[in-house]
Amino acid sequence: MENIQNNKKIVVIGGGTGTYTVLSGLKNHPVDLSAIVTMADDGGSTGVLRHELGVLPPGDVRQCLVALSEAPEVLRDLFLYRFEHGALAGHNFGNLFLSAMEKVTGHFEDAVLTAGKVLNIKGRVIPVSTEPMVLMAEYDNGKIVHGEHSIDAGGNGKIRKIFLEHEARASFAAVNAIMEADLVILSAGDLYTSLIPNLLATGIIEALRRTPAKVAYIVNLMTKRGETDGFGAYDFVTELEKYLGPNMIDIVCINTGIPTPEMQALYIEEDERVVSPDLEKFAGKRFKVVSGDFVSQIIFEKNSTDKLKRSLLRHDSEKLAKAFLDNI
Amino acid sequence: MENIQNNKKIVVIGGGTGTYTVLSGLKNHPVDLSAIVTMADDGGSTGVLRHELGVLPPGDVRQCLVALSEAPEVLRDLFLYRFEHGALAGHNFGNLFLSAMEKVTGHFEDAVLTAGKVLNIKGRVIPVSTEPMVLMAEYDNGKIVHGEHSIDAGGNGKIRKIFLEHEARASFAAVNAIMEADLVILSAGDLYTSLIPNLLATGIIEALRRTPAKVAYIVNLMTKRGETDGFGAYDFVTELEKYLGPNMIDIVCINTGIPTPEMQALYIEEDERVVSPDLEKFAGKRFKVVSGDFVSQIIFEKNSTDKLKRSLLRHDSEKLAKAFLDNI
Repeated sequence: MENIQNNKKIVVIGGGTGTYTVLSGLKNHPVDLSAIVTMADDGGSTGVLRHELGVLPPGDVRQCLVALSEAPEVLRDLFLYRFEHGALAGHNFGNLFLSAMEKVTGHFEDAVLTAGKVLNIKGRVIPVSTEPMVLMAEYDNGKIVHGEHSIDAGGNGKIRKIFLEHEARASFAAVNAIMEADLVILSAGDLYTSLIPNLLATGIIEALRRTPAKVAYIVNLMTKRGETDGFGAYDFVTELEKYLGPNMIDIVCINTGIPTPEMQALYIEEDERVVSPDLEKFAGKRFKVVSGDFVSQIIFEKNSTDKLKRSLLRHDSEKLAKAFLDNI
Repeated sequence: MENIQNNKKIVVIGGGTGTYTVLSGLKNHPVDLSAIVTMADDGGSTGVLRHELGVLPPGDVRQCLVALSEAPEVLRDLFLYRFEHGALAGHNFGNLFLSAMEKVTGHFEDAVLTAGKVLNIKGRVIPVSTEPMVLMAEYDNGKIVHGEHSIDAGGNGKIRKIFLEHEARASFAAVNAIMEADLVILSAGDLYTSLIPNLLATGIIEALRRTPAKVAYIVNLMTKRGETDGFGAYDFVTELEKYLGPNMIDIVCINTGIPTPEMQALYIEEDERVVSPDLEKFAGKRFKVVSGDFVSQIIFEKNSTDKLKRSLLRHDSEKLAKAFLDNI
């Protein structure tokens, strides 16, 4: 039996496909894993459930649960299954599980725990807050946009600032996980709508400042239209540091691999580009840069009804995991 | 450890609340339990799922799964949870589980097996057929009504005959369970819409004829408006024998207990009465009559959105179980 007591504690902060990838790789190693997940999603099936049932957003939690699941494939497929017809169309079974369980128990955290048992997850999935979060964006043109879904839609130019409509306090479990970690990974994924929302929950930045853990950041492979147009790795780090504060990051993980021209062409159709590594700009920075070809050779299927639709390219989860395990 | 090999094999045939009660009692004894469940339901959440998703009806299976579950209460509550708002209103979580799983695996039987594992059930739940069943009723006035839900609604007088629109073959698992049983219980519950539909699947009557098992029938406590108005125990048995054929029943279980006047009054409001035991009419019949006060002292909550709404009165599941265990 592995001695879980001595396993390194790794906390991954994020939500969405980027976090799914990071967790999928780390799961296969003897580490003690926790995923801290944004509660700001309000689009698609999750948005309907928030609105109609008054529940916390299940979508990002569901993805992380499935990433950490060691249950038979059919149960993981069930949690990702999306109804296609009738009044249920667009709803994801895992979302319905979490929302029904929240209604039954009265607590979203209990719903996440029970789903974790059913899915036999390795590690923990922790909502960053148990208060609903409503994300707001202020753009360079002065426009204010309300709701993660609307920010995701883009079309308003460059984001100047992202903030919450009302304060949301970080959950005790999230703060505790960060304080006890050996390594905290700020996950690849949508910068403003998956990663930064976690940092806006009151108490998270403070925990990141005080934890003895190393803090790592995984820069995205591709820019995202309406969020990070034209960003290079240096822009991602600079923007993140606006929210984290200075000297908080210990490791930055940057991809230098080049996707095939055919793959790049698919992204270019959507005005999205490979993120330039900017390695020369990081000279003299106090954090360690871990660079390499992190592009997965697996081509992921286009899924027109899911958030994953544009994530044809993903990080190689095993390469990422090894990079981190070499650095703690 | 109990020696499962030597446990008596009991098969309960039905669907709905009556079967739930019978299974709940037997579950607590060292028996090998199987529930064979009708696939003719087409009302409520189940009807919507049949229509919109083209799945087999999950409602009766769900109830039997929960009856046999030894999972923590919160999981059983989850499977019975009914959404109350928005597009999901009226849908039962357990139904959505079974339907999503049928879509994921392509087989309703696999969905039932997986749900059984999640709910940690004691025994097996077996769809009587894996072909969709459409129930038809012919009334004494010659009227033909299509669909279980419409028959349930009543208002057409006395049922002359119940039949299927198209043939549905019994599942192999159902026939096999009957052939290997020590006791087959034809469950209390709606006579024409929960019990008899099982007997209409091709192969079930034949299996009941050939099995070495004893066959028992539990007569309902109360009449049901539009189905069994004015029925006494003798009418229930006579009607059932029209479908079973003669000399098929070995044991008839008849309630002689009298519900409180207050309770009876609630049923009388709905034109429903206590079923008279008719014990004198059974003199000389070749089957054994097991009579006694089988009325549960627990008053069940009225649930306006569920089939259970009129089942304020139920059999005492423990008394029923003991009556059967004394007779095999």
